[in-house]
Amino acid sequence: MKLASLKGGRDGRLVVVSDDLHFCADATHIAPTLQAALDDWEHAEPELRNLATDLQHEVIPMLRFREHNAASPLPRAFQWADGSAYVNHVELVRRARGAELPESFWTDPLMYQGGSDGFLSPRDPIPLADEAWGCDMEGEVAVIVGDVPQGASRDEALAAIRLVCLVNDVSLRNLIPGELAKGFGFFQSKPASALSPVAVTPDALGEAWKDGKLHLPLLVSLNGADFGKADAGVDMTFDFGTLVAHAAKTRALSAGTIIGSGTVSNRDADGGPGKPVKDGGLGYSCIAEVRMIETIRDGQPSTPFMKGGDVVRIEMKDAHGHSIFGAIEQEVGSQEAGGA
Amino acid sequence: MKLASLKGGRDGRLVVVSDDLHFCADATHIAPTLQAALDDWEHAEPELRNLATDLQHEVIPMLRFREHNAASPLPRAFQWADGSAYVNHVELVRRARGAELPESFWTDPLMYQGGSDGFLSPRDPIPLADEAWGCDMEGEVAVIVGDVPQGASRDEALAAIRLVCLVNDVSLRNLIPGELAKGFGFFQSKPASALSPVAVTPDALGEAWKDGKLHLPLLVSLNGADFGKADAGVDMTFDFGTLVAHAAKTRALSAGTIIGSGTVSNRDADGGPGKPVKDGGLGYSCIAEVRMIETIRDGQPSTPFMKGGDVVRIEMKDAHGHSIFGAIEQEVGSQEAGGA
Repeated sequence: MKLASLKGGRDGRLVVVSDDLHFCADATHIAPTLQAALDDWEHAEPELRNLATDLQHEVIPMLRFREHNAASPLPRAFQWADGSAYVNHVELVRRARGAELPESFWTDPLMYQGGSDGFLSPRDPIPLADEAWGCDMEGEVAVIVGDVPQGASRDEALAAIRLVCLVNDVSLRNLIPGELAKGFGFFQSKPASALSPVAVTPDALGEAWKDGKLHLPLLVSLNGADFGKADAGVDMTFDFGTLVAHAAKTRALSAGTIIGSGTVSNRDADGGPGKPVKDGGLGYSCIAEVRMIETIRDGQPSTPFMKGGDVVRIEMKDAHGHSIFGAIEQEVGSQEAGGA
Repeated sequence: MKLASLKGGRDGRLVVVSDDLHFCADATHIAPTLQAALDDWEHAEPELRNLATDLQHEVIPMLRFREHNAASPLPRAFQWADGSAYVNHVELVRRARGAELPESFWTDPLMYQGGSDGFLSPRDPIPLADEAWGCDMEGEVAVIVGDVPQGASRDEALAAIRLVCLVNDVSLRNLIPGELAKGFGFFQSKPASALSPVAVTPDALGEAWKDGKLHLPLLVSLNGADFGKADAGVDMTFDFGTLVAHAAKTRALSAGTIIGSGTVSNRDADGGPGKPVKDGGLGYSCIAEVRMIETIRDGQPSTPFMKGGDVVRIEMKDAHGHSIFGAIEQEVGSQEAGGA
């Protein structure tokens, strides 16, 4: 089953979307918003599934689904926490600044608490007020969970996963060193992010959803050129069950909590850092990663961060080449406030 | 005007509370929840104020207001971000571990992104699963804002403050060093917090609300003994306008965002660290602070963190000795999951 929130009000209007993303059906008689459906999933889910079946059989009024009309599935959420499951990526960050990766990073997930009060719509511009902040995309996979009790096991956490989607975790790279030096984690360096137009139940992902990971390439392009196609199921040290259980260790998570994978990143076939797509590699899901590789190789980075007018696109396709979640496609805007 | 959320459903049921906290009136015909009122404040506020006037005049059906029946005013919120405005406190933390306070800490606010998906009710136990985590209270003041545009000035931020309340920012001290060493800030070390039973509009605070600060002592007791009575208006390096503007520098804040002051902390009259209440000082709003002073003085701390059965109470009284926000009073429980 695929769900989306059409733009409208602070929380959007819930629709069920056809598997091919061509059509949708109003679902607000079941639950006005996706958050409301997640709050009462036990009752809402079977009704939404019936509606999805009717839509697939074309026996109910259908609307053309246009990704441009979609808000993020949760236009605002009660929690967004982002892991760094691709430890390969974290190791590169460290190596670029000459620091060792602590051994514990391979066994204890790194996770930060993100701002969840406003997700940009998937085709909305990124409202960047100052290019000097170093705007970067981070292509990620995320899960949206139901209620998770404090101390949940990995298996309980896996069972609580309701939906899967993609994320562009917008990052302001040049603000990060100063913030991390203060010791309290990210804040101003992590402005509003965007989710994919559509969120999908794990069962609808078929074979690609296995062991708490999504085994498909994450397609990232920058200004129309392929930038990355790393497989989200490869080099993911911590699966989503482990990430959700980590988040729930000392407190319950309430329904609608979004847990991210961190930037998807694959090693090269030779075990070293990934190569650019144009050189036959799998490329990168964020600009920072290629800049780190450039720094390690050349002593300094050469790929610039995003400027006004740059366009990032993040998408994932099934074995038949069909978009699963729709595309996040964002132009870097300027001076516009946004995110709420 | 004073507002509260009676327990019921995920978001509580909105009531207007009398100034003396004795009575309340159902407000769900105006807005079902406090979040709904904040989402549409322009329309909801005048109607809620009329209801509050009617309640004060006892011309409408009144209910006895019982703090035990109150949820946190926002039982779940879209954002909770906590500053460290009492730099005196931050300086002590650093000094206890032999580190210098960077000069920039006096001009650039420290703030972390907290979890907002579940606030404990003000009289609910703290669901501590392991005493070894080092459970501590943090007595704080917080503001709840309306929509704040990206890049808002301090004055714009001050004008966006809708409500003021108290917070017990529960902290797991023994998990903090490990988490901060990982570099991404707090996560497991900051479980669900609790807000005061009542949230109050700034105008209802009268003279005590001035220059974006609340000029009254924050009364903290532990197991019935006075623990702290530091003045929240003293030694607050960053007022709430500055804190909210800091949070909004790179992204808009959506209505219902809660911004905390950090642990309230006053220097002693001689300029040194605060003395215990029993020694004639103003005491402390968290256990960590007295432990830091003990560490500086004796080489090691002697006051233990909270154990099962310990009770913390946090309250603020007006010039006539009347409770303004009602009391947060929480017993440390055990093994119970909670927060959602």
